[in-house]
Amino acid sequence: MRRRVRECGIRIGVMDSGEQDAISDVPGVSVGHMTLIQGAGRLVPGHGPVRTGVTVILPHDKNVYEEKLKAGVHVQNGAGELTGALQVMEWGLLETPIALTNTLNVGLVHDAIVDYMLEQNPDIGDQAEVILPVVGECDDSYLNDIRGRHVKREHVLEAIRIAGRRVIEGSVGAGTGMSALGFKAGIGTASRKIADDLGGHILGVLVLANFGDSRDLCVDGVPLGRDLQTDNDSSSNDGSIITVIATNAPLTSSQLHRIAARVPLALGRAGSICSNSSGDISIAFSTVGKVSASGASLSMSESVSAEMLNQLFRATVEATEEAILNSIFTSETMKGRDDNVSPGLPIDEALRIMIKHERA
Amino acid sequence: MRRRVRECGIRIGVMDSGEQDAISDVPGVSVGHMTLIQGAGRLVPGHGPVRTGVTVILPHDKNVYEEKLKAGVHVQNGAGELTGALQVMEWGLLETPIALTNTLNVGLVHDAIVDYMLEQNPDIGDQAEVILPVVGECDDSYLNDIRGRHVKREHVLEAIRIAGRRVIEGSVGAGTGMSALGFKAGIGTASRKIADDLGGHILGVLVLANFGDSRDLCVDGVPLGRDLQTDNDSSSNDGSIITVIATNAPLTSSQLHRIAARVPLALGRAGSICSNSSGDISIAFSTVGKVSASGASLSMSESVSAEMLNQLFRATVEATEEAILNSIFTSETMKGRDDNVSPGLPIDEALRIMIKHERA
Amino acid sequence: MRRRVRECGIRIGVMDSGEQDAISDVPGVSVGHMTLIQGAGRLVPGHGPVRTGVTVILPHDKNVYEEKLKAGVHVQNGAGELTGALQVMEWGLLETPIALTNTLNVGLVHDAIVDYMLEQNPDIGDQAEVILPVVGECDDSYLNDIRGRHVKREHVLEAIRIAGRRVIEGSVGAGTGMSALGFKAGIGTASRKIADDLGGHILGVLVLANFGDSRDLCVDGVPLGRDLQTDNDSSSNDGSIITVIATNAPLTSSQLHRIAARVPLALGRAGSICSNSSGDISIAFSTVGKVSASGASLSMSESVSAEMLNQLFRATVEATEEAILNSIFTSETMKGRDDNVSPGLPIDEALRIMIKHERA
Amino acid sequence: MRRRVRECGIRIGVMDSGEQDAISDVPGVSVGHMTLIQGAGRLVPGHGPVRTGVTVILPHDKNVYEEKLKAGVHVQNGAGELTGALQVMEWGLLETPIALTNTLNVGLVHDAIVDYMLEQNPDIGDQAEVILPVVGECDDSYLNDIRGRHVKREHVLEAIRIAGRRVIEGSVGAGTGMSALGFKAGIGTASRKIADDLGGHILGVLVLANFGDSRDLCVDGVPLGRDLQTDNDSSSNDGSIITVIATNAPLTSSQLHRIAARVPLALGRAGSICSNSSGDISIAFSTVGKVSASGASLSMSESVSAEMLNQLFRATVEATEEAILNSIFTSETMKGRDDNVSPGLPIDEALRIMIKHERA
Repeated sequence: MRRRVRECGIRIGVMDSGEQDAISDVPGVSVGHMTLIQGAGRLVPGHGPVRTGVTVILPHDKNVYEEKLKAGVHVQNGAGELTGALQVMEWGLLETPIALTNTLNVGLVHDAIVDYMLEQNPDIGDQAEVILPVVGECDDSYLNDIRGRHVKREHVLEAIRIAGRRVIEGSVGAGTGMSALGFKAGIGTASRKIADDLGGHILGVLVLANFGDSRDLCVDGVPLGRDLQTDNDSSSNDGSIITVIATNAPLTSSQLHRIAARVPLALGRAGSICSNSSGDISIAFSTVGKVSASGASLSMSESVSAEMLNQLFRATVEATEEAILNSIFTSETMKGRDDNVSPGLPIDEALRIMIKHERA
Repeated sequence: MRRRVRECGIRIGVMDSGEQDAISDVPGVSVGHMTLIQGAGRLVPGHGPVRTGVTVILPHDKNVYEEKLKAGVHVQNGAGELTGALQVMEWGLLETPIALTNTLNVGLVHDAIVDYMLEQNPDIGDQAEVILPVVGECDDSYLNDIRGRHVKREHVLEAIRIAGRRVIEGSVGAGTGMSALGFKAGIGTASRKIADDLGGHILGVLVLANFGDSRDLCVDGVPLGRDLQTDNDSSSNDGSIITVIATNAPLTSSQLHRIAARVPLALGRAGSICSNSSGDISIAFSTVGKVSASGASLSMSESVSAEMLNQLFRATVEATEEAILNSIFTSETMKGRDDNVSPGLPIDEALRIMIKHERA
Repeated sequence: MRRRVRECGIRIGVMDSGEQDAISDVPGVSVGHMTLIQGAGRLVPGHGPVRTGVTVILPHDKNVYEEKLKAGVHVQNGAGELTGALQVMEWGLLETPIALTNTLNVGLVHDAIVDYMLEQNPDIGDQAEVILPVVGECDDSYLNDIRGRHVKREHVLEAIRIAGRRVIEGSVGAGTGMSALGFKAGIGTASRKIADDLGGHILGVLVLANFGDSRDLCVDGVPLGRDLQTDNDSSSNDGSIITVIATNAPLTSSQLHRIAARVPLALGRAGSICSNSSGDISIAFSTVGKVSASGASLSMSESVSAEMLNQLFRATVEATEEAILNSIFTSETMKGRDDNVSPGLPIDEALRIMIKHERA
Repeated sequence: MRRRVRECGIRIGVMDSGEQDAISDVPGVSVGHMTLIQGAGRLVPGHGPVRTGVTVILPHDKNVYEEKLKAGVHVQNGAGELTGALQVMEWGLLETPIALTNTLNVGLVHDAIVDYMLEQNPDIGDQAEVILPVVGECDDSYLNDIRGRHVKREHVLEAIRIAGRRVIEGSVGAGTGMSALGFKAGIGTASRKIADDLGGHILGVLVLANFGDSRDLCVDGVPLGRDLQTDNDSSSNDGSIITVIATNAPLTSSQLHRIAARVPLALGRAGSICSNSSGDISIAFSTVGKVSASGASLSMSESVSAEMLNQLFRATVEATEEAILNSIFTSETMKGRDDNVSPGLPIDEALRIMIKHERA
């Protein structure tokens, strides 16, 4: 039975989590997955085996085009894709949901998000300005028939439809076929709460984790990767990680960019060296301080102190590290194309080591 | 009868052009367009009128995935999309053709380029690394039923199939429905030749021009926009411009980035203020100094002097300015959706003004 | 008798200027120069001839450390220095005056600004945080004994002391020994006024101009450089330009960064190719929306529309182009070290050409 | 008696170190410190107490202006200064030594490096191009009379004169008055060796460490900061870290930039959140692939595989983490201005905890 990191008695960092310890602790944020698992055995491109999916993060429950959000993007290593990133960097605004999928499915998912936006906003491309969807990706070809591009329009729209506050982790949605640090991984999430006297805001993180060598896994500083002496093919995967950060702290786009830039600190703690082929990209948005389609502010801006900003930085590092670990802890062993196997973290053995180090 | 800028006796800058005064003067570079024009009258989303297309630049005539090219990207104003840009920035390598289309068609064209790459390279996503296509866009919704996403897979593959050294300009391919500086525009191209004692290399530019106010058009410094006293709806289009630069000079990716960064100088000369909604993005690649799929250099690198670099900078400014003007000079008046009209530059009147200023 | 561009009947762009057509039209902004001219003939490093100086821009008349300003920096070509730039980029705040001088004097001027800041703020480095002065430079070694570093602490403090709203242009302050586009240049300034219905704000520009080839000078689109057929040694100077932009529009640091990023458009219009050795760096600040030393906002933020932002972009392009031209039009011929001569623009001849082109 | 991390039996990472486990393991690199300690008790600005200095890294033993090195800069959080950074980013070249000092001394040290460069190169500013020194800083005002700017020209020149291959660590040179993660820190160094079959190159790191909260210190993943339950005033120091990376691997400037971008991974591992006021800046250079003053390559370039690049990334993370820890392990308790105390790490207690965690 898979458990989240906290449920194993492991505590990353010093700050408190939000209620669910998830990105959806930020009011209004919801997440939907469509998980596609089909077939087994030898890879027949276009036919499977299928181990993939799509994950959509809805930044709030209204029309994102009409109520845009302040946002920032940080690229630690750019060997990956996050469509729409250039516009988020320029304008500091997010105006579509964020979708995650496998590398070769970016085009179709992009088109499906356009579908969704056009349906929601009949004026787009007529009287109103066009949109550039935000779609991120990792490469799941170790387990999945990635050439088949099995994520279709209807899967994306269904993921949006069923999005909710309960975030399922592990081998689901875009994370279905992903591996990290030598173990099966995928989607993970976590959150942190800023001190009440600094505003009591929530910062939540969701990762699509698909990076790193098997010997490098660190859990709260314990070198589990070395101690578990794993050695498997998925370790050659030098993948990527897309990190989505949400907060209800009233930040500017510059501050959100700076928050996104704290993700590498957590990557280092978890064991990443951000390898040459890794797309290590993060996007952060604030659910307050919305902006109308015409560019007008929909609320008054508030002032953020350096102390509060530092707590948000700390929250980002802690929640990202925990989200990565959650993506691993909650993922079962999976066999995929050509019978490639990505092993689930042996939790009992891992916990024995953690306890020996007095860290669980 | 439309004519190119040079054919009108207007000479931009001081350097010589290549043989065709086109991006395809760079050996190996070819360009293909698919132009989609259908229907008239009232906009019925999904049905037309259609005024759009796709343009593909093939950087050389071999397999681009197997023989990658050094490349650099520059973002002057990021309110646009160039998928794959983050990877080009990180690795300094181009490994797919470059496709241009309308904003809402980016997803489908992206997917079609994936199709093409997978067919050419059966190993991608199996034993070989996946790819991230480079797809740029401008918004043609003033004339086109952009919601209809009329560019399909077969159009992209056909544009690749028919790509050649002769580059058609004006309202073709991705440029079909575009307007710039108050006039009908679209695709334009030009080239410059470096002095023989500095290597005699060629630098060519292709633009997808869709930006700027009607009063702002400058032709070789002459404020034609003001003098022609145009005033039409398409002037409210604050669009975008994607600039593709090719050269056979043996440059590093950093140097190519710096070349791409000279495009804004030409935008200023043509009359752009790089408005808030403009996606002013440029990509430059060198056809020499290729790199194998495994990352190994396929040729020796040479040394580039500051003097040669400065000539390449000048070539970029001159060729980009001329390519923009060519996109306008070669485009006829077009009527599109809801009977919106984008007027062709009145060439005779324009030439009268140019001659009065002793510039033609 | 030297005249400014406007006084010659040349009008750059379409917007109205502020009262003085100067950066100091922005309420609170003042400028001080110390001009050092001494000796003649052969260069004896350390002894002269001296043709240099320092220019200080005070962003407002209060304590800048206590009332910091939102600011942004843009680097078009980074072969130059603007100390403090990294911090302005990170925090989006300006907390010291901006000083300009020659390349090798950056250290001493930096130290003098520290002196000034420490005297004004006895707490800095004790209970309060330290500061990083903003000092920019160009290379005046064609005329000046730059090895001598003749700008001393007292010159910087005196430039601050005498700073006022009247901005002297040409061969003064940091501009004393500079040349641009083949002619003697130095300091230039200009301003533009936003439409009253968009807020009526002022944007002012001051340049230290020291770039470009002699054949490339364009004045309002007229290729004066070619027509004047100048050819002199100073044309080999591929120098730099530092641009300082002030406005009382209520902008965020991101918006100020974007404004600074419009400077290249004006450089292109004036004739620059941003050569390899050029340090083309711009900094923009807003005099409203101040921030306290502790990071608290000292005023409410307002909302800025895309339309207003576009006017500010246009104002930046127009005022920068005019400021560059003013730096040339107002500079007399100067003889410097080793009898090197930088010729003043022959204004009468230039005006004849401009009139022939119906541009004056 | 202070010991380095390795001497305590703590091993960071999995790669082998160079001979001295220092930046000077890279052939040609030498380091010189001048340490200024004078006075005690109450701060009298300008008089002391003095706890500061300067550190100079000479990238090779020839004339750096004549034999420039490929280099890259990465800014993780820009609330600090590294003069010359913009030029290194633009050209990808290092042409002066790198000097480190306290924040307010940047100007004087900058000027002293100019002195040194002018003396070595009589042509600079005469027939040859001027230079922009690379000077980094951290804020030592917790212990030092930083307002006094006690580092003078002669100290810088002396540090250059005595530079050698033996790198002293701890409270020396620029590190004299610095603290990190709640403990006295300063200068630290370490190195790693690439596998022989990948070229056997050396990568060395030197840090000026002055960042972080006391509770956050991690040593090889062990949360020493929490376990030691320290609580002292220096913990409020949210300082900075400048990281200098040298290697004899034949890298391009882009690759060196990417190497510098791995430093944040090590910062995260050591316990940093890269606070708002932190200047977290890194610079990397290669001692091979030199470039002449005229821009010509002085050697043939070689090809670097992704595998080799990944090893260099790993080497950077490991060596930076160890260098930070060395800066702490080798620093004794220091009392400074106003009797402020920065406590040395209690090594015996620390080792007890490390042994309990089976990490020493």
